[in-house]
Amino acid sequence: MNKDPIGIFDSGIGGLTIVKEIRKILPNEDIIYLGDTARLPYGTKSVEAIIQFSQENTEFLVSRGAKYIVIACYSSSSVALDILEKKFDVPIIGVIKPGVKQALALSKTGKIGVIGTTLTIYSGAYEKAFKALDRKCEILGRACPLFVPLVEEGWLDHPATALIAETYLKPLKEDNIDTLLLGCTHYPLLINVIRKVTGDIDYVDASKALGTELAQELKRLDLENPISQEKRRPSSSKITIYLTDLSINFKDIGERFLGEPMKNVSRISLKGV
Amino acid sequence: MNKDPIGIFDSGIGGLTIVKEIRKILPNEDIIYLGDTARLPYGTKSVEAIIQFSQENTEFLVSRGAKYIVIACYSSSSVALDILEKKFDVPIIGVIKPGVKQALALSKTGKIGVIGTTLTIYSGAYEKAFKALDRKCEILGRACPLFVPLVEEGWLDHPATALIAETYLKPLKEDNIDTLLLGCTHYPLLINVIRKVTGDIDYVDASKALGTELAQELKRLDLENPISQEKRRPSSSKITIYLTDLSINFKDIGERFLGEPMKNVSRISLKGV
Repeated sequence: MNKDPIGIFDSGIGGLTIVKEIRKILPNEDIIYLGDTARLPYGTKSVEAIIQFSQENTEFLVSRGAKYIVIACYSSSSVALDILEKKFDVPIIGVIKPGVKQALALSKTGKIGVIGTTLTIYSGAYEKAFKALDRKCEILGRACPLFVPLVEEGWLDHPATALIAETYLKPLKEDNIDTLLLGCTHYPLLINVIRKVTGDIDYVDASKALGTELAQELKRLDLENPISQEKRRPSSSKITIYLTDLSINFKDIGERFLGEPMKNVSRISLKGV
Repeated sequence: MNKDPIGIFDSGIGGLTIVKEIRKILPNEDIIYLGDTARLPYGTKSVEAIIQFSQENTEFLVSRGAKYIVIACYSSSSVALDILEKKFDVPIIGVIKPGVKQALALSKTGKIGVIGTTLTIYSGAYEKAFKALDRKCEILGRACPLFVPLVEEGWLDHPATALIAETYLKPLKEDNIDTLLLGCTHYPLLINVIRKVTGDIDYVDASKALGTELAQELKRLDLENPISQEKRRPSSSKITIYLTDLSINFKDIGERFLGEPMKNVSRISLKGV
């Protein structure tokens, strides 16, 4: 048993979709969220920069007493997880592996599609994670760099979004994948246009898969919070949000991702920001 | 006369399109370029953050002996120019005003469209710059946040790009603008799809307008470099590029923008990066 909070970091506020999933599965846990909005996005930065930023984020969350670190950022999970695990004593979970396990469990043919940002796909992190668990599976990756700006523009059913989805996903459909892993926080919001191209196959939402695995891990390591939500005072805080920059519309977008009001938001400075 | 270099900064490498224009008009000038690639894009950051980053960039260029500062970044020019002009002794030119002057000179009806990133448009900087020079003009702004990722994806003539351009620009066409100002480094690459929507009107490329005005200013202040290119040793360096982060594909994209090979590229650290 452990009353300390779970620490979650992301390059921005997209990781709040993961907080939302974790809240559903683990309603008794306190959460500290760190969004490195001053340096987002990580996907266009160098591997060295992403590793440095990820270390600074983890140090911050550990200094605030986090009992478990969740890397909600796909770019960080792709390139920094191994290094962070060596450097820090606290257990750490990335957003890559849980989705990989679930996709392998669902796929019958072993032909699995993965979509993500350019860095996530070209880093080869998904390919590596799949092959480590199942050497025979066939992984078809596709970078979809326009999906994030389309979601942020709110064009979830614009004709252009459908055309772009078709350009990105038709090759995966033609290669007869039977499972598609949505490897980016924003992509579940595009599930309707995606489904129109790739059809009636299995879809894995990496954020949900992460929430499920985190719950199992907390139980296994006996790190669950014994104080249930019902026993708390109503005013007690559950989610504390730190951002390295407060942009004009962070609250609007953030609350859409989180699915509840954003309270307890502070701007903080990391070493290098 | 002054042999010192011109200092140019941008949030990334998009500003190299401005370097290209300046090189055409001022072939004798040395250039130091600073791209703050570790913190790009600025357009999604807060005004306070953009001002802080812009000050650090200017300090760096001044410390390297820049005789004139060019702000190639639209977000910085929108929100930080006035503050930088007060804080630094070196003359500074932003990318907003030269385009505004040229658009006003070209427009007959005074109905002028301006397109740019979300921050550039919503900051109201263009509106303010236009009204300061001509109180009677009518300015129609439109944020086009998907244009930059489309250009970076290389989809200059994809059907989705045409659809997106239509969604963004049709209202400007219907309002009968007679001049359209392209207020973002990337947009001139989309001129063909833009022209298909807004038709046979006058277009202003803000980068070219800036180059023309900078040449006039150097002459006026007697800051031109007296040493012509022909008299130099062939090995002498003309453009020195500093980036705060080196991403995977910066060279490919950068050389497309610059129109020549990128030599003398170094990674540097600013105070806050």
